[in-house]
Amino acid sequence: MRSEFDFIQNIKKKYGLNKVGDDCAVLPKDAKTDMVITADMLVEDIDFRLDWTTPELIGAKALAISLSDIAAMGAKPVFALISLGLPKAVWETDFNDKFYKGFLTVARHYNVEMIGGDLSRTPDKIVIDSTVIGNIAKGKAILRSGAKPGDSIYVTGELGGASAGLMLLESGCRYSTSNDRKKQLITRQLRPIPQIKTGEQLSALGLATAMIDLSDGVSSDLLHICTMSGVGARIYCENLPYDRNLDELSFNSAQQAGLALNGGEDFELLFTGDEKQISNANLPGITRIGEITANVGIIEVVDQKGVSFLQPKGFRHF
Amino acid sequence: MRSEFDFIQNIKKKYGLNKVGDDCAVLPKDAKTDMVITADMLVEDIDFRLDWTTPELIGAKALAISLSDIAAMGAKPVFALISLGLPKAVWETDFNDKFYKGFLTVARHYNVEMIGGDLSRTPDKIVIDSTVIGNIAKGKAILRSGAKPGDSIYVTGELGGASAGLMLLESGCRYSTSNDRKKQLITRQLRPIPQIKTGEQLSALGLATAMIDLSDGVSSDLLHICTMSGVGARIYCENLPYDRNLDELSFNSAQQAGLALNGGEDFELLFTGDEKQISNANLPGITRIGEITANVGIIEVVDQKGVSFLQPKGFRHF
Repeated sequence: MRSEFDFIQNIKKKYGLNKVGDDCAVLPKDAKTDMVITADMLVEDIDFRLDWTTPELIGAKALAISLSDIAAMGAKPVFALISLGLPKAVWETDFNDKFYKGFLTVARHYNVEMIGGDLSRTPDKIVIDSTVIGNIAKGKAILRSGAKPGDSIYVTGELGGASAGLMLLESGCRYSTSNDRKKQLITRQLRPIPQIKTGEQLSALGLATAMIDLSDGVSSDLLHICTMSGVGARIYCENLPYDRNLDELSFNSAQQAGLALNGGEDFELLFTGDEKQISNANLPGITRIGEITANVGIIEVVDQKGVSFLQPKGFRHF
Repeated sequence: MRSEFDFIQNIKKKYGLNKVGDDCAVLPKDAKTDMVITADMLVEDIDFRLDWTTPELIGAKALAISLSDIAAMGAKPVFALISLGLPKAVWETDFNDKFYKGFLTVARHYNVEMIGGDLSRTPDKIVIDSTVIGNIAKGKAILRSGAKPGDSIYVTGELGGASAGLMLLESGCRYSTSNDRKKQLITRQLRPIPQIKTGEQLSALGLATAMIDLSDGVSSDLLHICTMSGVGARIYCENLPYDRNLDELSFNSAQQAGLALNGGEDFELLFTGDEKQISNANLPGITRIGEITANVGIIEVVDQKGVSFLQPKGFRHF
């Protein structure tokens, strides 16, 4: 069956949709500024479960994942729209008050103004679509398409935590657990933090040749950069910054690498650029995990056993 | 139970969301231009039924209803984003190819560029959220809040057809009917036409003091203008431009007036302004249906029997 990525590539080509395909579309705003815009849909029982989270956290995550797309362009978020579809039974609770509280608390934290959206009824599941608009200096948006052979590959923060948190939730553990490390992993899943500041620093300093946010997992998201840039990549497993709480779940090193490479929803940034320049910039909390190669579309993974070729195993809807 | 309108007013006030509450939010773009933006959600079995329409028509309508919000500001639509949530079984059909074909055919017709969105999975119903961005000369967006006592009230086109089309669909009639007038009514429901050109003319000529598109019905939508403008209104039933095909359904005049006043989804424009100026402009296809009064929040309906007070009976989700 075709994947959603194939489908999008296909309609993009068929209808000449040149602005489709990055984390955000880039639009001209004024003489000095470009505007970026993104939309993200979250669906009950596909992207979240009511018994795993809270209305406030759902609202916070709905905005955070779109802010992460803005971060992935190096832009500053400014405005948000939120469309919310609710079953009648949920409307009759205080879900929406709490949802908007969560959404608007995050909005306020990042100085984002909520300017509109829609409120609709659904037959039986909650659906959310969040749209965020950001600004960036003209021509400075960091696309997926600029990676060059020889560039180093970096990620912000730690990897695999959100996906481990999801496994914990699936196994019956809840946010209310008294185990602090498990709680932190579940928090990575339920309450992602968009890397706005690092994104803005990278665009302001002109350091990143390509960037994407880690929503589907390193394997899938790095492949997007490789495809759009016409390059390949080599990843060093021993360099991957595993989430510090992964030990809690007693995984072996291969399982940890699997979570870090394929686990979705960490919402960290993955970017490429010149090693020397980036090293000189002393950005906090970033890790060099590999380098861009000329082997178009091929991602090599180097571990103690040698070199293997990575298949994208990150999250796909279809 | 509180309505969605009360809820929106409440969070607007509570969180100081000043840009929320019109057909579109108005944002500064550059020295000469403002940007307007709107989002609209459509949900299967709430807003459309798969056995009543086609994937192409759903795609066309998803864009058309957002274009209608752009028209209601007097703006020119420029960009669109579409988020589509599909059950797996629908993904495996050609629904989405046909949906995007319908969407993009309308986009092309209005010179709107599709720039992004999202593609997601839902448990069992189709959900669509369409976002459209438009441009308008700075300060020229026509808000809901500018109506003044003494202004005349106008609508474009004919009223009640979309809602009569919905009744036909509910009674088992289909688009494939050989009755041409019934087909036209069903078309009003399934394939709305946004009044972009008239909207742009009204803003270019500076003729409208307030404007809204008729999505919920005259009674509800006129009340939005009255509430936002702090005015009242008087409607003359004999002036209402009933859809020419309503006779087909052998309604009496009271039923026709009910459809024209409360029937949703005609997606015509309702606007207010100076009678002389508007008359002199010779705009095609508009009808004067009443006038704005100083009786704040009260809508009087004048028919052969005298004056009654209109209760908003238009479409509400909750």
